[in-house]
Amino acid sequence: MVFVGFGFLMAFLQRYGFSSIGFTFLLAAFALQWSTLVQGFLHSFHGSHIHVGVESMINADFCAGAVLISFGAVLGKTGPAQLLLMALLEVALFGINEFVLLTLLGVKDAGGSMTIHTFGAYFGLVLSRVLYRPQLEKSKHRQGSVYHSDLFAMIGTIFLWIFWPSFNSAPTTLGDGQHRTALNTYYSLTASTLSTFALSALVGKDGRLDMVHIQNAALAGGVVVGTASEMMLTPFGALAAGFLAGTVSTLGYKFFTPVLESKFKVQDTCGVHNLHGMPGVLGALLGVLVAGLATHDAYGDGLQSVFPLMAEGRRSATAQAMYQLFGLFVTLTVASVGGSVGGCLLKLPFLDAPPDSQCYEDQIYWEVPGEHEDEAQGPLRAEELDTQA
Amino acid sequence: MVFVGFGFLMAFLQRYGFSSIGFTFLLAAFALQWSTLVQGFLHSFHGSHIHVGVESMINADFCAGAVLISFGAVLGKTGPAQLLLMALLEVALFGINEFVLLTLLGVKDAGGSMTIHTFGAYFGLVLSRVLYRPQLEKSKHRQGSVYHSDLFAMIGTIFLWIFWPSFNSAPTTLGDGQHRTALNTYYSLTASTLSTFALSALVGKDGRLDMVHIQNAALAGGVVVGTASEMMLTPFGALAAGFLAGTVSTLGYKFFTPVLESKFKVQDTCGVHNLHGMPGVLGALLGVLVAGLATHDAYGDGLQSVFPLMAEGRRSATAQAMYQLFGLFVTLTVASVGGSVGGCLLKLPFLDAPPDSQCYEDQIYWEVPGEHEDEAQGPLRAEELDTQA
Amino acid sequence: MVFVGFGFLMAFLQRYGFSSIGFTFLLAAFALQWSTLVQGFLHSFHGSHIHVGVESMINADFCAGAVLISFGAVLGKTGPAQLLLMALLEVALFGINEFVLLTLLGVKDAGGSMTIHTFGAYFGLVLSRVLYRPQLEKSKHRQGSVYHSDLFAMIGTIFLWIFWPSFNSAPTTLGDGQHRTALNTYYSLTASTLSTFALSALVGKDGRLDMVHIQNAALAGGVVVGTASEMMLTPFGALAAGFLAGTVSTLGYKFFTPVLESKFKVQDTCGVHNLHGMPGVLGALLGVLVAGLATHDAYGDGLQSVFPLMAEGRRSATAQAMYQLFGLFVTLTVASVGGSVGGCLLKLPFLDAPPDSQCYEDQIYWEVPGEHEDEAQGPLRAEELDTQA
Repeated sequence: MVFVGFGFLMAFLQRYGFSSIGFTFLLAAFALQWSTLVQGFLHSFHGSHIHVGVESMINADFCAGAVLISFGAVLGKTGPAQLLLMALLEVALFGINEFVLLTLLGVKDAGGSMTIHTFGAYFGLVLSRVLYRPQLEKSKHRQGSVYHSDLFAMIGTIFLWIFWPSFNSAPTTLGDGQHRTALNTYYSLTASTLSTFALSALVGKDGRLDMVHIQNAALAGGVVVGTASEMMLTPFGALAAGFLAGTVSTLGYKFFTPVLESKFKVQDTCGVHNLHGMPGVLGALLGVLVAGLATHDAYGDGLQSVFPLMAEGRRSATAQAMYQLFGLFVTLTVASVGGSVGGCLLKLPFLDAPPDSQCYEDQIYWEVPGEHEDEAQGPLRAEELDTQA
Repeated sequence: MVFVGFGFLMAFLQRYGFSSIGFTFLLAAFALQWSTLVQGFLHSFHGSHIHVGVESMINADFCAGAVLISFGAVLGKTGPAQLLLMALLEVALFGINEFVLLTLLGVKDAGGSMTIHTFGAYFGLVLSRVLYRPQLEKSKHRQGSVYHSDLFAMIGTIFLWIFWPSFNSAPTTLGDGQHRTALNTYYSLTASTLSTFALSALVGKDGRLDMVHIQNAALAGGVVVGTASEMMLTPFGALAAGFLAGTVSTLGYKFFTPVLESKFKVQDTCGVHNLHGMPGVLGALLGVLVAGLATHDAYGDGLQSVFPLMAEGRRSATAQAMYQLFGLFVTLTVASVGGSVGGCLLKLPFLDAPPDSQCYEDQIYWEVPGEHEDEAQGPLRAEELDTQA
Repeated sequence: MVFVGFGFLMAFLQRYGFSSIGFTFLLAAFALQWSTLVQGFLHSFHGSHIHVGVESMINADFCAGAVLISFGAVLGKTGPAQLLLMALLEVALFGINEFVLLTLLGVKDAGGSMTIHTFGAYFGLVLSRVLYRPQLEKSKHRQGSVYHSDLFAMIGTIFLWIFWPSFNSAPTTLGDGQHRTALNTYYSLTASTLSTFALSALVGKDGRLDMVHIQNAALAGGVVVGTASEMMLTPFGALAAGFLAGTVSTLGYKFFTPVLESKFKVQDTCGVHNLHGMPGVLGALLGVLVAGLATHDAYGDGLQSVFPLMAEGRRSATAQAMYQLFGLFVTLTVASVGGSVGGCLLKLPFLDAPPDSQCYEDQIYWEVPGEHEDEAQGPLRAEELDTQA
C-alpha cells in the first residue's frame, strides 16, 4: 500500500502533480524489483535460489518506502534518470543497513523508525545538500500549492493514516505482538493529529491552520513509534510519543525548514526532515529507552518474540538498549555517506537534471493536456509559457 | 476506515474542502481517543484498568462515525472549538445510549441503524435547529459545489459503498452471522443505488440526474439494514429495504430538505436527515419487524448468537421486537435532549462561531494557497475577497 | 473493489467526469445483481434456490468488471438506457461463456484474461464498431483530458495496481496456489510499469511521457498473467510477460488506436483494445503455453488444485493446452456475436443515444454545478454553451 499515500502526499505542488505521482509509481516499481533481488541475496539466499513470498513482498515494500522518502527531499529538482540511479544505490544500501541492524546487531525496528524513516530522510537530505541549487528561486513561483492540489495531498495523508497501524505491524509476529503494535501506532497517530492541529493554530497567522502541517505532521505519530510500537510502550506512552512527534514536526515545518535552506543549504521540498527525519530519530531513541526498561516480568512469555536474545539470557536490557543506540548511529552513518556518494553520482551531466528555472514543472517530462489550446483557465498560463520559452 | 469516506463526502462545497476534510480528521482523532475512554469505562472497566483491543477500536470507530454524521448537519456553520465541544458531549451520550440499548435492553443493532445513524443524525439536526441562522443566505453563494469538488465527493461515496458491508459486519460474531450481514448489506446497497438513479432522473429537470442524490442516497441502503442485516432478512428483503431507502432518501433531498429549512428552521448542510435520519429510523423499524418474525426454525443454532435471550427462552420474539422499538425511542430521546443541550452550549460566545457572511468559507480557519497571488483562475475570486473585506 | 478503479480510470475526460464515475456506479450495481442471478442459475442452482455467498460475490464482481471494460470502449457515446441494455445482454453472455469455459471445457482462467478481459474488450469493441459515428469529430474538442482529470484517473490506476494481485488470486484455491498467483501478478505489474515508462518516453515527442500510457499500459501486466498466474509461470516468466504486455499496450496506444478508428471504424474511447484486448489475448496464449509445459514434477501435489483433470490422468498437458486455446476461440466468438447483436439493439431509437455534437458531455445527463452562474473559470465556457444551444 505504501505508495498510494506517498504519491498523493507529494502531489501538493501546483504544476508537478503528474511527476509526483508518476515518478512515485516508477520508483516504486523499480525499487520493488531491485530490492527483492538485493534482500533476497542478503536474507534468503539458499543454494542458488532466492526464496520469495509474502515476507519478501513486505520487505520490498518497506524498502520502496525509504526510496520514496528520499524522493520527497529532492522532489521537483531531479529528472527520472537521476531518480532511478538514486534508487539503484539507495536500495542496495538500505538492504545492507537493514541486514547489519536486524541480523548482525539484533536490533528491533518493526515499523522502521531507523531502517526506513531515518535512513530514507537523511539519505535524501544529504543528497539534496550535494545537489544544492543557489538559483532555485527562479522556480519559486511554482513551489506553492493550489486549492485542488492540497485536496489531492489530503487523499495521501488520510490513506497513510489509516494504513499506518497495519504497516507498522506487518512484519511483527502474529498474535499479541501484532495487536500491541497496531494499537500503539493508532494511539500515537490520534495524539499527533491533535497536537498538530493545536500547534498549527498556535503558530499560524491569526490562529489559522496551515494545510501543510495537517498533511504531514499529523502522520509523525506513526513514524515515532516505528521502533517501540512492538514493545511494551503502554497506551499512555504511545499518546505521549505521538503528541511530542506532532509538536516537533509542526514546529519543524514552521521554523526549521527555512533555516535548513538558508543556513545548511538543504532544500527539502516535502519537508521530509520534519515528517521522517526528526520523528525517526526520536522514535529510535524511544526504542532505546523502552528496550532499556524491558523486564521479564513486564513481557512474560512475549519476551521471546520481541527480544529473543534477552529471553535466552544472552543479552541484558541495558545491552539491548546500547545495541539499539548503536543501530541508530550505523543508520545515520550509512545514510550520510550513501547520500553524499549518491549526490555526486547524480551530478553526472548526462543524467539530464532540470535547469534551475524549470524545477517543479511537469512540462519538461510530460505531455501536459491543454498545452496546445488557448485555454485561459487551463493549468498553463501565458506568463508561464513565456518563462519557459 | 470510517472517516475517509465521510471526509471526502463532505468535500463537495466549493470553498470548504480544507475544513470538510481537515475538521473530519480532527474530530475523528479526538472522538477515537475520547470514546475509547468513555466506552472503556462503561464496558470493560475491570479493577482500575480499561481493556483495549481490536473490539475497542471498532467501537471507537463507530462512535466517531456518529460524531461525523452530526458534523454533516452543521458543516460550514461551526468553528473547530464548537465542533470539539460537540464531540466531547456527543461521545459521552453515544456511549451511554449504546450501553443502555445493547447491554441493559438487549437490543440488537450490529450496523448501528439506531446507535450510529439515528443518534448521530437527530443529535446533529436538533443542534442545527438551536443554532439556526436566519441570515444564512449571506453565504448562500458559497453553498453549492463545483465540478471538481463533486468528483472529490464521489471518492467518498465509492469508499463508503465498498466498505459498508465490512463496516456493518465488523461487530457481529464470526462465521455465518458475519457472512449474512455482509451479503444483506451488499444487496441493499446495490438496490438503493439503482432506485436512487431511477428516482433522481424521474424528479430531475429534463430527466437529468443530480450528483447530490447519487453521492448520498445511493448509500442509504447501507444505513437501512444496519439493524436487520445480522438477522434473517433474506436477500429479497435486503433488496426491498435498499430500494425503499434509496427512494425515500432521494425524495427527501428533492422535496423535504427545503421544507426542513423553511418550516422547521433546520439548516441541514449535507442532508444527513435524508441519508442517516430517515433511513436510520426505517432501519430500526425494519429491525423491529424482523425480530418479531424470528423463530427457532428459521435461525437454528444461529439463534444463540443473534438473539441470545430468545435462545435461552428468556424473551419471546414479540418481546424482543418491543425492546427494539423501545431502543429506537430511547435513542431519539437521548439524541434530541443531547442536541438541545449541545446547541445551547455551542452558542457560548467565546467559542468563536463564524459570522453569517463567512459560512462555508475555508479562509477564516486555513491559510488558503493563492491568497496572496493575483490568479484570475484561482479559487479566490475578486468578488469574494470584496465580500470578505 | 473492482469499480473504484475503473470509475476513476475513466474520469480522465474533461467534461465527462460525472458520467464516467456515475454510470460506472450504476452499471456495477446493476451488473452485480443481475449476474448473481445469472450465475446462480448456471452454477449453483440447487432445488429451487440459488446459493449465495462470498464466492458468488466474487463472481459477480468479475462479471461487473467485464461490463465496465466494455463501457470503456463506448464511453461518452452512449446514454444510460443504452448502457443498461448492454449490461443486461453482456452479463448473460458472460455467464454462459464462463460456464462453457470453466465448467464444460475445464479451462483454467483464474484472473480472467479470457473470461473478463478478452471477452469484455471485444464485446465492447464490436459494439462500438456497430455504433460507429462518422461525425464524431464534432465532439472532438471535449475528448481530451485536463490537468486535474488526469490526476483523478491516476487514483484509479494506482488502486487497480494495488488490488490486482488480490483480484487475480481471489478465486484460486487457498494456500500455495493463491500466494503464487499474487506474486506472479505483482512481478508482472512491476515489469509492465517499467516497460511502459521506457516505451512512453521512447515514442513520445522530445522524450516526454504521455499520461495516458502511464494510466493504462502500466496495468497491462495484471491482465497478461490473468490466465497463467495460477500456474508455474516462475518469477522470470512473470517479469517477461509483464514487460511484453507493457510494451505492446504502450505501442498500441501510440500507433494502433488511430488506425483502429480510421481503418476499422472502431472508436475506442478508453483504448480498451490496448489495455484489455491485446494483453488479454496474449495472456490466454501464455496460458496455452504454460499449460502445455506442465508436468507432474514441476507441480507436485499442487497439480490437483491447478489442473485437476491432468492430476487424475484424464487429460495430457498438450490436451489441456488445446482446450485453453479452444477456450480463447469460444470467448472471441461469443464476444463478437454478442457485441454485434448488442450494437444493433442499442441502435433502437427510443434508447436516446446522445447526438454526435453532444458526446463526452456531462450536461445532457447531469445537473452540472455552475451552469447558472457566470463563472468565467467554471467548467462551462461560453463557447460550449453556444455549441449546445
